[in-house]
Amino acid sequence: MVVKIGFGKLGNIGSAPLLEFLLDERAERKDVDVRVIGSGAKMGTEHAVEIAQKLIEFKPDLAVVTSPNAALPGPTKLRELLTGAKIPTIVISDGPTKKAAPEIEKLGAGYMIVEADAMIGARREFLDPAEMSLFNADLMKVLTVTGVFNYLWQEIDKAVQSIQKRETPILPKVVIDKEKAVSYSGLSNPYARTKVMAAHEIARRVADLTVEGCFMVKEWERYTQLVAAAHEMMREAARLADEAREMEKAEDTILRTPHYDDGTILTKRKLLEKPKKVGEA
Amino acid sequence: MVVKIGFGKLGNIGSAPLLEFLLDERAERKDVDVRVIGSGAKMGTEHAVEIAQKLIEFKPDLAVVTSPNAALPGPTKLRELLTGAKIPTIVISDGPTKKAAPEIEKLGAGYMIVEADAMIGARREFLDPAEMSLFNADLMKVLTVTGVFNYLWQEIDKAVQSIQKRETPILPKVVIDKEKAVSYSGLSNPYARTKVMAAHEIARRVADLTVEGCFMVKEWERYTQLVAAAHEMMREAARLADEAREMEKAEDTILRTPHYDDGTILTKRKLLEKPKKVGEA
Amino acid sequence: MVVKIGFGKLGNIGSAPLLEFLLDERAERKDVDVRVIGSGAKMGTEHAVEIAQKLIEFKPDLAVVTSPNAALPGPTKLRELLTGAKIPTIVISDGPTKKAAPEIEKLGAGYMIVEADAMIGARREFLDPAEMSLFNADLMKVLTVTGVFNYLWQEIDKAVQSIQKRETPILPKVVIDKEKAVSYSGLSNPYARTKVMAAHEIARRVADLTVEGCFMVKEWERYTQLVAAAHEMMREAARLADEAREMEKAEDTILRTPHYDDGTILTKRKLLEKPKKVGEA
Amino acid sequence: MVVKIGFGKLGNIGSAPLLEFLLDERAERKDVDVRVIGSGAKMGTEHAVEIAQKLIEFKPDLAVVTSPNAALPGPTKLRELLTGAKIPTIVISDGPTKKAAPEIEKLGAGYMIVEADAMIGARREFLDPAEMSLFNADLMKVLTVTGVFNYLWQEIDKAVQSIQKRETPILPKVVIDKEKAVSYSGLSNPYARTKVMAAHEIARRVADLTVEGCFMVKEWERYTQLVAAAHEMMREAARLADEAREMEKAEDTILRTPHYDDGTILTKRKLLEKPKKVGEA
Amino acid sequence: MVVKIGFGKLGNIGSAPLLEFLLDERAERKDVDVRVIGSGAKMGTEHAVEIAQKLIEFKPDLAVVTSPNAALPGPTKLRELLTGAKIPTIVISDGPTKKAAPEIEKLGAGYMIVEADAMIGARREFLDPAEMSLFNADLMKVLTVTGVFNYLWQEIDKAVQSIQKRETPILPKVVIDKEKAVSYSGLSNPYARTKVMAAHEIARRVADLTVEGCFMVKEWERYTQLVAAAHEMMREAARLADEAREMEKAEDTILRTPHYDDGTILTKRKLLEKPKKVGEA
Amino acid sequence: MVVKIGFGKLGNIGSAPLLEFLLDERAERKDVDVRVIGSGAKMGTEHAVEIAQKLIEFKPDLAVVTSPNAALPGPTKLRELLTGAKIPTIVISDGPTKKAAPEIEKLGAGYMIVEADAMIGARREFLDPAEMSLFNADLMKVLTVTGVFNYLWQEIDKAVQSIQKRETPILPKVVIDKEKAVSYSGLSNPYARTKVMAAHEIARRVADLTVEGCFMVKEWERYTQLVAAAHEMMREAARLADEAREMEKAEDTILRTPHYDDGTILTKRKLLEKPKKVGEA
Repeated sequence: MVVKIGFGKLGNIGSAPLLEFLLDERAERKDVDVRVIGSGAKMGTEHAVEIAQKLIEFKPDLAVVTSPNAALPGPTKLRELLTGAKIPTIVISDGPTKKAAPEIEKLGAGYMIVEADAMIGARREFLDPAEMSLFNADLMKVLTVTGVFNYLWQEIDKAVQSIQKRETPILPKVVIDKEKAVSYSGLSNPYARTKVMAAHEIARRVADLTVEGCFMVKEWERYTQLVAAAHEMMREAARLADEAREMEKAEDTILRTPHYDDGTILTKRKLLEKPKKVGEA
Repeated sequence: MVVKIGFGKLGNIGSAPLLEFLLDERAERKDVDVRVIGSGAKMGTEHAVEIAQKLIEFKPDLAVVTSPNAALPGPTKLRELLTGAKIPTIVISDGPTKKAAPEIEKLGAGYMIVEADAMIGARREFLDPAEMSLFNADLMKVLTVTGVFNYLWQEIDKAVQSIQKRETPILPKVVIDKEKAVSYSGLSNPYARTKVMAAHEIARRVADLTVEGCFMVKEWERYTQLVAAAHEMMREAARLADEAREMEKAEDTILRTPHYDDGTILTKRKLLEKPKKVGEA
Repeated sequence: MVVKIGFGKLGNIGSAPLLEFLLDERAERKDVDVRVIGSGAKMGTEHAVEIAQKLIEFKPDLAVVTSPNAALPGPTKLRELLTGAKIPTIVISDGPTKKAAPEIEKLGAGYMIVEADAMIGARREFLDPAEMSLFNADLMKVLTVTGVFNYLWQEIDKAVQSIQKRETPILPKVVIDKEKAVSYSGLSNPYARTKVMAAHEIARRVADLTVEGCFMVKEWERYTQLVAAAHEMMREAARLADEAREMEKAEDTILRTPHYDDGTILTKRKLLEKPKKVGEA
Repeated sequence: MVVKIGFGKLGNIGSAPLLEFLLDERAERKDVDVRVIGSGAKMGTEHAVEIAQKLIEFKPDLAVVTSPNAALPGPTKLRELLTGAKIPTIVISDGPTKKAAPEIEKLGAGYMIVEADAMIGARREFLDPAEMSLFNADLMKVLTVTGVFNYLWQEIDKAVQSIQKRETPILPKVVIDKEKAVSYSGLSNPYARTKVMAAHEIARRVADLTVEGCFMVKEWERYTQLVAAAHEMMREAARLADEAREMEKAEDTILRTPHYDDGTILTKRKLLEKPKKVGEA
Repeated sequence: MVVKIGFGKLGNIGSAPLLEFLLDERAERKDVDVRVIGSGAKMGTEHAVEIAQKLIEFKPDLAVVTSPNAALPGPTKLRELLTGAKIPTIVISDGPTKKAAPEIEKLGAGYMIVEADAMIGARREFLDPAEMSLFNADLMKVLTVTGVFNYLWQEIDKAVQSIQKRETPILPKVVIDKEKAVSYSGLSNPYARTKVMAAHEIARRVADLTVEGCFMVKEWERYTQLVAAAHEMMREAARLADEAREMEKAEDTILRTPHYDDGTILTKRKLLEKPKKVGEA
Repeated sequence: MVVKIGFGKLGNIGSAPLLEFLLDERAERKDVDVRVIGSGAKMGTEHAVEIAQKLIEFKPDLAVVTSPNAALPGPTKLRELLTGAKIPTIVISDGPTKKAAPEIEKLGAGYMIVEADAMIGARREFLDPAEMSLFNADLMKVLTVTGVFNYLWQEIDKAVQSIQKRETPILPKVVIDKEKAVSYSGLSNPYARTKVMAAHEIARRVADLTVEGCFMVKEWERYTQLVAAAHEMMREAARLADEAREMEKAEDTILRTPHYDDGTILTKRKLLEKPKKVGEA
């Protein structure tokens, strides 16, 4: 059975742009069919309705919706329409979504709240296309090496596997914090693990400054510096994540977990060894 | 008038994941409405047909389609259907697309071929979700700081402006090479410019190794090392791009070009100054 | 008049070890006489009593007391004894001291609460003499470049000047946060300023992990990783502070404010210029 | 028995500010009681007399005195008064102290001469509070990772242990040079050891430039550059020390030697293992 | 028997300046006698004739000639004269020499074509003595760590050994590309190997920009930037090579292959072990 | 008139391998003709005699001889034969040559003693071809950026100019120390200047460790570490030199002094400006 996964994207968070490719990194999987519907930077309820409609037309076995702050009306509407259409739905969003978690549970949807997926410094004096792109690139590095991305795709994969077995998928209900992230990082050196835990916390705290700079401070010289400082923090977190990965290279222990054609996850540690299925000799 | 832009994404290239956000980096523009339809990692003609159909339902004023190697049947079908529906279409793709350029022109579509958008090292022994994500993050840094992304969104913006004026949009027909990219980088320090030109060339040459490793070498130990070396090159290119941007910070000359609500491009150089419209005192 | 300053040190914080030398960095001042009495790592009330007694014997015109968490009984006793002896007293301490601020004010003492002076990761599985020393060295770098140390010694200098003029010294009552610190940093490049603001916030957030690791988590494997991650954060903050200072070197704009023999503060920006008194041509 | 240790500090050297905390890095030791008396940056004989008096009032079982150049009158007076009061005394000082070594021995005192503890660039055109602090932070890193600090506290600990056994303490008489330092560094990787040996030599040679710049060259432009170059050397030495420690992290072999509550030294190599007493299984 | 080796150097390439010292790095070999004749930067046929004459006077058992582009008249003349005098001759040159390879073979000479030995950015607006020297230093680092230099001296050593055994030496006929180079690098960590393969490719591609900048582009602003970008690439390649070697230090696995007095190659991996002859226990 | 310059090279020092190319970095000069005669790593008197003979056959207008320690018999013989043949001769050598300076003057020869040109760590347990090459590459970077190489070629150029004017050349008699070197560095940022002064001193002090390791310490484990530490110092000096040059790039102030075809020295500071003769508008 080919499992149909529909991704609905309202606005942007760091977890969103590469999400569908995390599931099928070499375009070789035969067990899934993916469709993505997005509304760009906008995330109003009218966008939510249209995205839901297109996704439902696709008749997905599983829906994954991404947005900032899933407590807002747009993301709320989107998941209500999808769960209303009996589609198993996973909400992936950032820290402010915590307050919506009970309501998401009530809908029967799953959620993965990514604490390190900090809000960008969205002030006109600072954020232009280049700055937006660099922030996302740094954030992606952090989310990758800290283990957050592994957590995301492995939970989606689990749901896919349940569906393939015609079981009701168990949808994740998790706030990914520093320790949960690191447990998925696959890092073997304990100092590499502490470095990515540090990177995670720095990334998470970026949001303190961007929230202050975007919503609480009115003087433009002050908020410009605040959001700029926040982006420096994210750059630093990315640098630390990179340092951790280089440590693993130095010991030739980078965990690689490529997908096999049938969706199975293979695993290997040494660069010059063949990946194996778990349990394979 | 709100210009409707439809993004069709078949498979992934570095230029694609953040493309729609480059147009509206703070979600403030009122002059455009964006819809994205994608098929994830897959790029067959059947996906092309479905994406085209959904895009056409959206009745976009402008379509932008992204894919690797736009000479392949899937991307070809997608742009044929869109241009067949009289939708002005811009093809954004990577180096191998050059051979399709005449045919794209014949369709009346525009194209932007990004030489530095090198193919990923898609070998199962090497490429897992984490490695895929890190490669894309590095590549995004390169494409941002070298000026490639600026080139992409400014051409799309030009088309949008023509459409707003009810003019026939002039679609770009360009191969973005090292010198064209740098001319859009906005870098003021000449050494920063040479550093990003170096980064561009390193990134472009990544494709030599990934193509060799993915298509020409059969021994797995050899191709694994080739594609791994290619990703080291991209990491290095990203580091050089970062170095160039830091140079501009050291002189407080980073060019910022945020979008205003109405889609106008503002501009500023000093961190602590207000962005202005071009020509504004 | 030579102003006698007595430093009482109970336990250690990053602001303490070099504090008296910040006042007289080249041992040339003739207007102050300094005495330091400390009890090493311990900070019980019995130590406080003994330190107070020795300080009072010195008959200082001004007392400066340093300790972690000045709300604890030891530091509280120390300042009570000093203020009881009518000695103008400034309390310098870390974040948890905020809750003691009203009580300190009531005593008529001043205080400078240093948010970035984060608690060390005091777990036996992690903290040995070397790790303690490295943490302090990193923290000193952060406190120096972010402007915190400038803030501390300039406030003490102000009190000294008042006393020299036989005025009642105005004692500081300040929580040094990211913006207050940076305003004292003397950095001229706005990106250097945002970098040290980032360094400040990373340093401040170190305390979240050390408090969690030292007081809230019981499993040793977990708390060891938490406090180790916290020290990685501080190392990163120091690196960022260093980067900011190097930026200023690149423009030859490092602000230097050496003390003259009579305690006057001189000032200069270019490495190869003579320092001048403020207002001097 | 609780051993009382009195620290007398005249002026500053890199070995001094954290010295008492090296003995009790987590404030948990029950076997020692520490008192510190200092005179800030000044080191005249009048300061020496007063410090000696306060220390003698404390009735210490062991005195440790720190100062630059212990051949000067102030430090000489201090140790004469202490040894005259029959207090076992260890002198810790920098390179110029070598000439005083025979005289120190004659007094029955011990000494630890730290070659790498180079004189600061004390010129008004260069050295302000911030520069002083950064130099000390760099120097502390060097003294920590090269093994110098380990040497210092372990010798003091040995004396403490003798006193606890009611034995006459054997006081150290040592010039800590590059090889002696490294033998205490605990580094396991031989390249890390050569890196810290290099760091040690660079730090030691800082004094050549600061002595030339402070005492031999009269033209201010020249001496300013000389002392500034010296501080660049120290920054570089610190960077190399950091690099060495990161190497050990990469192999998870950092030696940690925390003090137990009773003053015993524990030891461990892996981050995630419990420290043990020497000889413990 | 002492083998006499004559080095003829026409113009400069990165492989040339240290070549004779690679054979006898500590000046201890007793089995070879070396003479070097060079004409500096010039490489005309008149220089070739004179160098050949001086070399022939030396009656070498083996000649090694270095130059850029050995297809040019000067280098061609030089090897013709040497082979005409029945001297076994090895040509060492850069990429453009490939077209001369058949002709070199016809002469009975050997050749080693070094792909990574890229042409320098020889434009007057850019290349001064300092820039020339820095480029060569970076290039030497690349050629060393990637394994190219090992390849060069080991092939010369093989020829020497044949001559010592009174055999006709088998002269190398090889184009050293990325994989051949790395196979001689002695690096044990597979990521270090991929890093130097990346460094090799970056270095090789330097020539694309310098050839374009020196021969194809006429506008001085453009060619100045092209050749400057090329040198940035080489600096980056050197940095990557350095990173690879540091990785090996971190595992204490640097392969060292010193020459013994009799020309035998010894070998060792750990810093603190004695080198051994191959096969020695 | 074309000035004929003969370079005689006995053994190796860092100043030697690129020396002739410093005079004619782009192979464009028409006013000089260069010949190089060398004996590889060996520097016995028999080599000196043969090199002298070949050089004299060339009838040079100026001879430049390089070797380590020019007080040794080989280098002494070489300059005696050259000056005996009435050839103006400049000796370029390293620190130990100072003791031969009076004797060189007596011969009427000039000398340039390069303090930073430190002896390599020539121990069989450590120094293999790769380590030799890397040391030289690092040393070349130091000698370039600190200004030493500029000093060398400019003095040779001065002698060449005198000869062209048929004047008796004034030969240099100089010990190049840290301040003399920096005065030739062309660096404009004062911090860059202090950084290269630091690099110079670190490089100079390398010799302390290599001399100790090669001649004074007998235990192989000890001397291996000493010479390895020395090479780490040189790597660090090179890194600092690189940092200084990058600082100048950040301000676009790198001084470039290319030779014109007629040997004139041109000069420029901005990357994108044409070089000019001194005095040219």
